Amino acid sequence: MVKAVKNQPPHHVVIVGGGFGGLYAAKALSRARVKVTLIDKRNFHLFQPLLYQVATGALSPADISSPLRSVLSKSKSTKVLLGEVSDIDPQQQKIFMGGEEIRYDSLILATGAKHSYFGKDHWEEFAPGLKTVEDAIEIRHRIFMAFEAAEKETDPEKRSQWLTFIIVGAGPTGVELAGAIAELAYHTLKDDFRSIDTKETRVLLLEGLDRPLPPFAPELSREAQASLSRLGVNVKTKTLVTSIEDDIVTIKQGDEVTQIAAKTVLWAAGVNASPLGKVLAERTSAECDRAGRVMVEPDLSVKGYPNIFVIGDLAHFAHQNGKPLPGVAPVAMQQGEYVASLIKQQLRGDTKLPLFYYADRGSLAVIGQNSAVVDLGFIKFTGFVAWLFWLLIHIYFLIEFDNKLLVMIQWGWNYFTQNRRARLITGKELLQNVKADHRNKDYTPAQNIQAVM
Amino acid sequence: MVKAVKNQPPHHVVIVGGGFGGLYAAKALSRARVKVTLIDKRNFHLFQPLLYQVATGALSPADISSPLRSVLSKSKSTKVLLGEVSDIDPQQQKIFMGGEEIRYDSLILATGAKHSYFGKDHWEEFAPGLKTVEDAIEIRHRIFMAFEAAEKETDPEKRSQWLTFIIVGAGPTGVELAGAIAELAYHTLKDDFRSIDTKETRVLLLEGLDRPLPPFAPELSREAQASLSRLGVNVKTKTLVTSIEDDIVTIKQGDEVTQIAAKTVLWAAGVNASPLGKVLAERTSAECDRAGRVMVEPDLSVKGYPNIFVIGDLAHFAHQNGKPLPGVAPVAMQQGEYVASLIKQQLRGDTKLPLFYYADRGSLAVIGQNSAVVDLGFIKFTGFVAWLFWLLIHIYFLIEFDNKLLVMIQWGWNYFTQNRRARLITGKELLQNVKADHRNKDYTPAQNIQAVM
Repeated sequence: MVKAVKNQPPHHVVIVGGGFGGLYAAKALSRARVKVTLIDKRNFHLFQPLLYQVATGALSPADISSPLRSVLSKSKSTKVLLGEVSDIDPQQQKIFMGGEEIRYDSLILATGAKHSYFGKDHWEEFAPGLKTVEDAIEIRHRIFMAFEAAEKETDPEKRSQWLTFIIVGAGPTGVELAGAIAELAYHTLKDDFRSIDTKETRVLLLEGLDRPLPPFAPELSREAQASLSRLGVNVKTKTLVTSIEDDIVTIKQGDEVTQIAAKTVLWAAGVNASPLGKVLAERTSAECDRAGRVMVEPDLSVKGYPNIFVIGDLAHFAHQNGKPLPGVAPVAMQQGEYVASLIKQQLRGDTKLPLFYYADRGSLAVIGQNSAVVDLGFIKFTGFVAWLFWLLIHIYFLIEFDNKLLVMIQWGWNYFTQNRRARLITGKELLQNVKADHRNKDYTPAQNIQAVM
Repeated sequence: MVKAVKNQPPHHVVIVGGGFGGLYAAKALSRARVKVTLIDKRNFHLFQPLLYQVATGALSPADISSPLRSVLSKSKSTKVLLGEVSDIDPQQQKIFMGGEEIRYDSLILATGAKHSYFGKDHWEEFAPGLKTVEDAIEIRHRIFMAFEAAEKETDPEKRSQWLTFIIVGAGPTGVELAGAIAELAYHTLKDDFRSIDTKETRVLLLEGLDRPLPPFAPELSREAQASLSRLGVNVKTKTLVTSIEDDIVTIKQGDEVTQIAAKTVLWAAGVNASPLGKVLAERTSAECDRAGRVMVEPDLSVKGYPNIFVIGDLAHFAHQNGKPLPGVAPVAMQQGEYVASLIKQQLRGDTKLPLFYYADRGSLAVIGQNSAVVDLGFIKFTGFVAWLFWLLIHIYFLIEFDNKLLVMIQWGWNYFTQNRRARLITGKELLQNVKADHRNKDYTPAQNIQAVM
């Protein structure tokens, strides 16, 4: 605990990570009498709940991103730095960023998580996950290139492999991706091709547990399953993936082992905390859980270091009902605001400080086709009304930092009418890439192609 | 000339390139009794006149792109193929695309141009040009990363190099880029940084001839020069670039040679036609000009091959007043429509066919800061009214294929208020990239950085 002393330099709060946790902490500290440094390796805050929309061609990256500097431009005592924090010295109260070191009085770590393959890291090249803008553009490339390749393919078996999409993991991201791909194939693209019928596309959603959206109430899972089936998604529950290789996914249901040929496999099954958690654990006596999250105290600080806080997906907070809080945006936002107010109270010299309590206002997931599931605790609902509710909530939070209202209305309308305006296949390599790409080695054109167009 | 014969397969028109020329030809043929195949290596049409807006963070790529398949989805006899044409056999009437060959009855080549370094191709790594979406994202990365690097730089000399931007070539693209960067530095970003004052940015626009916008009337060039100066752009005319090396641009004005240190150099000085023009010239008796453009007959066909047409930036058409037509969108659009109607007339058996005539409806260029120059021939005007005219014309053409009206209104508003919402620094490599990047070798952080965030 640190007290403000007159004629001293202002209390310096260093926040690492500009996601929901870090940015909400920075916003809540913007009028406090502290100096704030926010460090991120990206120059923008990403609204991750809509990232699957970028991956499926409905939105552009900028539609769901806000430059950190512009969000915080009015907070004159807040400095934004672009960089990667590689180490921490809790005794000297310093963090290290490349050759630089920065001293802090209070430190907030909010570097989040990325997708994880449970030790099978070689699956990543065949089955990319969705955490960054670059991931989304890569997945968008693969999805739209698969339809293009199918259009040119003359062998019916290979054509069908190009038209088979497998999504591993039926949490919210997996359900959203599967629903969006089904909509693309069965509605948006249905008049766009001449050699293939995109309605022959197969979308498989694989889940290890016994129902999609396992964190939700069972009746909402049933509803989600029904919506997905109506959309044309084949949901396979109690299904484990045992191998992902070039074009072949091996699955196990009970004792039955099956191989499915598919050119496009997407990973939505697991996450691991950012490695900075382990670095912190090595430098302090903090412990990490299996997913690399730092076990935090009831006030989100690290054991023995009351001026170091860990929030959001990087934190394992189990003081509420024994289970760790889920890795969702509302948890990170509330934790960021809590830590900011705790620091302000400490500086005022308050001694009776509240512990963190997560106010769960509910959860929601969208399935596509103007359908969603909403669980507000006191009420659960599904279908079109749930979709509208989901849309409004997301538009509300998305425009909070940035005046994206018209863009969002346009998007809501496109989404409602199943148009997708951002179906660009981009990237430095393009066609050549498809060839070099392991997943796509059967793509026919481009032996010794000269760049012509 | 080909005549339609009953009970034969339909006349097959192959169009290579989905830019303004190719797409307008395809649209004009969509209801004709012909089979059309449109080939492009990208799956979208790019509205290139606004590409500099993507490069400077005001628009997203999808805002100025329309998926070719969706533009042509209602033309059931039109097939879109993703691929690169590498060769042509005019005797057999075939084009070659990777391993595939496609037979045509009429062929329209519209593969455009890309930027050229007049034989100094090694300048490209230091001074990227702006032709593709990937170019625009690369330039956006460099511009915004330069401000980030300046913010972290403590050496005043290096800081000033990061804040120096040189644009080579004061044609429309160069003027637009210079104006947009000046607006960014002096308005949009002015409150976003804490260590640097972005108003110290220097923007230099270099031009070999004696005035900016040389294709325009001299009084409009004077007006453009005045507008650029008001914006803070330093326009250097009669200035030749003799060398571009790591961080140093050497220029020659008369006999005076000067070296300018700048971390960001952008190339807007010259274009070369797509290599397919040379391939065609080798296979026929057609000739190419110095820029690689194919010399075409008065009906845009190739000498000796009345069923092969070359249009847009790939064509050198000098039958109007001795000078080749400029490489602008209206020329390509009119040529595409002309060739489509010529093919339809040929199929009807018309014998008296019109020659191509370009109806020049004027030219316009935007300078920024709500200022533009417009030359409609019978009237010339500048300033805010010209800017509004420029905006409306561009919105009109941009929404022609695609319902982007709300996006465009939002953009017009942002542009008017000097907000830029797409200031994302993206790319696979990010900070590491800055280090590896030749241009940016002085960027300080990131020795042995571990990916942490």
